[in-house]
Amino acid sequence: MDTWQAINSVRVVREFADRPLEPDHLTRIVNAGRRTGSSKNEQRWVFITVQGRDRLRELAAVGRYAGHLAGAAAAVALVTPDPNGPRGKSIMWDLGRAAQNMVLAAWELGIGSASATVYDHELVGKLLGLPGDQDCSFILSFGYPADPSVLTAPNRAGGRRSLAEVSREDHW
Amino acid sequence: MDTWQAINSVRVVREFADRPLEPDHLTRIVNAGRRTGSSKNEQRWVFITVQGRDRLRELAAVGRYAGHLAGAAAAVALVTPDPNGPRGKSIMWDLGRAAQNMVLAAWELGIGSASATVYDHELVGKLLGLPGDQDCSFILSFGYPADPSVLTAPNRAGGRRSLAEVSREDHW
Repeated sequence: MDTWQAINSVRVVREFADRPLEPDHLTRIVNAGRRTGSSKNEQRWVFITVQGRDRLRELAAVGRYAGHLAGAAAAVALVTPDPNGPRGKSIMWDLGRAAQNMVLAAWELGIGSASATVYDHELVGKLLGLPGDQDCSFILSFGYPADPSVLTAPNRAGGRRSLAEVSREDHW
Repeated sequence: MDTWQAINSVRVVREFADRPLEPDHLTRIVNAGRRTGSSKNEQRWVFITVQGRDRLRELAAVGRYAGHLAGAAAAVALVTPDPNGPRGKSIMWDLGRAAQNMVLAAWELGIGSASATVYDHELVGKLLGLPGDQDCSFILSFGYPADPSVLTAPNRAGGRRSLAEVSREDHW
């Protein structure tokens, strides 16, 4: 799949088929995160993959909109140094770049994804066994879509602000 | 270019050919940012494109490592609501996702890019005419590489931590 096609067609998928990811596919996804460029090439991330159904169900309790994790084929928890300090902006910026690489690499393989924001940091720390200096603020769900037609569905009209709304020349 | 190929081969380019971007190419890059999924689809971003050489040189003064902006064919300044508040983490995460979409879309078109971190927020606010509630923490340089061979060069060994270093199964 051409890069632009992936960027333009990818959509959020929250309902997944009940089958595991092919191991090569999960490895490709994690490698897409691993390859990502980062501030000073610091690569301040660890990707924790979770595939057991019970553990996925437990992870689904970490946030108000994290329910999709319960039905995912795999979750990838994105772990970084504490992003609440002075370098937090660049940690989160880098992490978003890695996430997008994973989302696009998955989409090319026919795998949908959704992102969950962590609200309960104590719970996620316990479930993943995180040291006190590590943080998990986002977890990605991956899986083959329950409805494969979403992979080729046209973009919904009005789903994004127009080019005129989101761009300017030279100044605000 | 296949999506995985773009993800795996893209590299930072800081030296650019002295020719402008084709207008369709710049539009494609901004559209790649515009299409990005974001938290609650809030799209908290405005992309300010800058192509004038004098203004690019001025922008190059916003950070210690922002010199590449002076020679870029175009800069895209990424503007968001203030990311220093409680929602800052998700603003920066979303913005990183948009940046990666732009970087990959550019790479497919033979366009290199580099990211600059803004240190002098007062200067960037003045140059871009930003309202007080808007922030620009990152600016991307884009341009056709001065050395086109970088577009097809193999990855440098040791450029990224290994899969074993950056990934775990189930827990830390």
